[in-house]
Amino acid sequence: LEEDSIDRFRSEFLELHPYDQANIFLNLLKETRLQIYTYLSPDEMAEIIEHFELEDVSEIITEMNPRFAAQIFDELSTDDAVDIMNILERNQIASYLTLMNREEAKEIKNLLHYEERTAGSIMTTEYVVVNQNMTIRQAMLHLRDEAPDAETIYYVFVIDDDKRLVGVISLRDLIISEEDWVVSDVMSERVVYASAGDDQESIAKLMRDYDFLALPVVDFKKHLLGIITVDDILDVMDEEASDDYSKLAAVTDMDRNDLSAIDAAKKRLPWLIILLFLGMITATLIGQFEETIAEVALLAVFIPLIAGMAGNTGTQALAVTVRGIATGDVMSEGAMKRLMRETLTGLITGVICGVTIILIVIAWQGIDQLFLGVVVGVSIMASLIVATIAGSFLPLLMHKLNIDPAVASGPFITTINDIISVIIYFGLATTFMEYLT
Amino acid sequence: LEEDSIDRFRSEFLELHPYDQANIFLNLLKETRLQIYTYLSPDEMAEIIEHFELEDVSEIITEMNPRFAAQIFDELSTDDAVDIMNILERNQIASYLTLMNREEAKEIKNLLHYEERTAGSIMTTEYVVVNQNMTIRQAMLHLRDEAPDAETIYYVFVIDDDKRLVGVISLRDLIISEEDWVVSDVMSERVVYASAGDDQESIAKLMRDYDFLALPVVDFKKHLLGIITVDDILDVMDEEASDDYSKLAAVTDMDRNDLSAIDAAKKRLPWLIILLFLGMITATLIGQFEETIAEVALLAVFIPLIAGMAGNTGTQALAVTVRGIATGDVMSEGAMKRLMRETLTGLITGVICGVTIILIVIAWQGIDQLFLGVVVGVSIMASLIVATIAGSFLPLLMHKLNIDPAVASGPFITTINDIISVIIYFGLATTFMEYLT
Repeated sequence: LEEDSIDRFRSEFLELHPYDQANIFLNLLKETRLQIYTYLSPDEMAEIIEHFELEDVSEIITEMNPRFAAQIFDELSTDDAVDIMNILERNQIASYLTLMNREEAKEIKNLLHYEERTAGSIMTTEYVVVNQNMTIRQAMLHLRDEAPDAETIYYVFVIDDDKRLVGVISLRDLIISEEDWVVSDVMSERVVYASAGDDQESIAKLMRDYDFLALPVVDFKKHLLGIITVDDILDVMDEEASDDYSKLAAVTDMDRNDLSAIDAAKKRLPWLIILLFLGMITATLIGQFEETIAEVALLAVFIPLIAGMAGNTGTQALAVTVRGIATGDVMSEGAMKRLMRETLTGLITGVICGVTIILIVIAWQGIDQLFLGVVVGVSIMASLIVATIAGSFLPLLMHKLNIDPAVASGPFITTINDIISVIIYFGLATTFMEYLT
Repeated sequence: LEEDSIDRFRSEFLELHPYDQANIFLNLLKETRLQIYTYLSPDEMAEIIEHFELEDVSEIITEMNPRFAAQIFDELSTDDAVDIMNILERNQIASYLTLMNREEAKEIKNLLHYEERTAGSIMTTEYVVVNQNMTIRQAMLHLRDEAPDAETIYYVFVIDDDKRLVGVISLRDLIISEEDWVVSDVMSERVVYASAGDDQESIAKLMRDYDFLALPVVDFKKHLLGIITVDDILDVMDEEASDDYSKLAAVTDMDRNDLSAIDAAKKRLPWLIILLFLGMITATLIGQFEETIAEVALLAVFIPLIAGMAGNTGTQALAVTVRGIATGDVMSEGAMKRLMRETLTGLITGVICGVTIILIVIAWQGIDQLFLGVVVGVSIMASLIVATIAGSFLPLLMHKLNIDPAVASGPFITTINDIISVIIYFGLATTFMEYLT
């Protein structure tokens, strides 16, 4: 990148899609990047930044001249600007806001108040709005004026004289309407909207079910606050899926690819330590049965099998229920009916696995270990039933108590089921000791 | 719903959003539904059907008059029609295709050839295409004609005289261009496209990264075959997330909410039976150490803890890697570097957990059980290291071999790690037996 090739660099680089520009950009040396900042205008740089991962942006923004950064914030769509601001330090935010265009800064300040993961935090304020009394011609002219700044022009929102949302009209309908018709005659009055406090996951579900490209967000008086566009929803869906997945595997914040082993260990260790202590509960319990084990050492052989099967079944039931809560299926069915069905499922799987293991033990140890086989088989059966019920009941309970059910991650359910299954197994074995020796 | 209220029903029902109509519809009795089919036109019914879950559609379609159903297929967008056809019986498909409009039937037949989960299977053929030599005015007129049938009009694809894709122009750009400009001057020539055989997951990633509302699909000569719209991508993302999640929990096809316990058991039992046999491997291995256990029964106490910790760590590493493959992070980093880092992560977590457990054992059993503590601690350390490597190496290996890495589900990794950790534990214990007794 020599000084005299600025023009060539600009013409070649700017022809690329901003996502590709962003990828190239991240692979450059810091010095080269600093040089490029002087070649690009704030709005060109803003387009590139919109395609960065959030974690990379903070580094990029911080290394820039603050005035240049503030100009970029002016150019970014408000929702992206807010996302970036949210990961910066408090004093950084303040300094950028003071350097920014006053109008833009005010809008961003308003948006910064919304809690993370709510409709308010992902909405943008750059939408096109028309009055219901305009003609189609006026609306189209207004649209053309607003188009360069708007996040989407494919939906135009319609307000009445009190600025309340009364309808929506798609660009498709605008185009096929006659120019002298009035907006209120063409618009759809049944407009679906969200409140600023709504959870982003429910917004994603709404947009997916209704096939919306944009959804208006209103306050309690139905004044339009912003819109949520489908490209943001793609990110939300990715985030939420990643989130549920992480929790099932007990890793914190999996989204960010770890750069060092220490980072990775930091995310996994807290869970592992908790699970270690939970595991000690199981160990202590088995410790109570030390004498039983000393007498029939063969009993110990089946501990991991029984605990493992209970853990696996519990995880299955947990995953089905957490997913059912996420898709809303659970709500439409009723918790009681679901629990009944899960209990029956546990019974079916329990009986089949229990009988299978009895046959395996007999095949392995001979018919004289029939009693051991029965103890193992009955333990597996009982454990599977209890584990299935626990796996489906706990998330439902947490959901009712307004705790995110995905927190009851796989390993936790597994440990609870370990404990239950060990008690059942050694309880049975100790009771029928005389037949086992 | 009396005979004379048809008009009132129509006016009230049709004012609702099709998604709401679909929900109402599904809760009706079969007789009422059969009656409604006579009130609604095929295209009104088609709009409702587009918002059904696929599983419900087959029932609905089958209960209709076949001629009415065929008319609905004519009205549906081709991608939705193909999705529905794909879950019907072969002879049903044939009979609907013969009853359909010949043109539509031919397009659907073509699309039915694409494999599931490829770009071809989710694309639609209802798009707007213009020649590069048209003026903006001609293009807009053409767009207005095509608008009622097109799946999206927000992107118009541009072809040359050989019908090859040469560009794309957004409706936004069309609207702000002068009417007498030529399309080829306004269009963007750097159009991103997919091949019909591309995997739907990679398409979803592409559309999310580039923020596209629609993506063209071409054949090897760059002839336009269809487009994929963002609303279909929302469904794809949901499906893929659900899929990865199911596999981590070892449940087949979790998406469909189970209607009976037998259905639920059918999806879980195959996995449970496999895991039962895998668990028997662990049991057989421990069986080899029966004498060791008989001598020091206390050893058995820590089996679930060690196996459980190895399983949890393995699941964490697995989940991070599977997710990394899904987001493409793994590719950009290189497998070797990733493995090195995971090994180091395993070492860090292993040492910390190992030391913790030694302290716990001493606190619990007294200082004279120091050797037991060390055996347990070292086993946990070694297991954690091996489990972390296995959890991250196996998915990478499977990915290289073109097997879906998510198949290496949580429980499988857990069982493999159970086996490894038990060998380490009892191997150590047997070697240092003299110090333990």
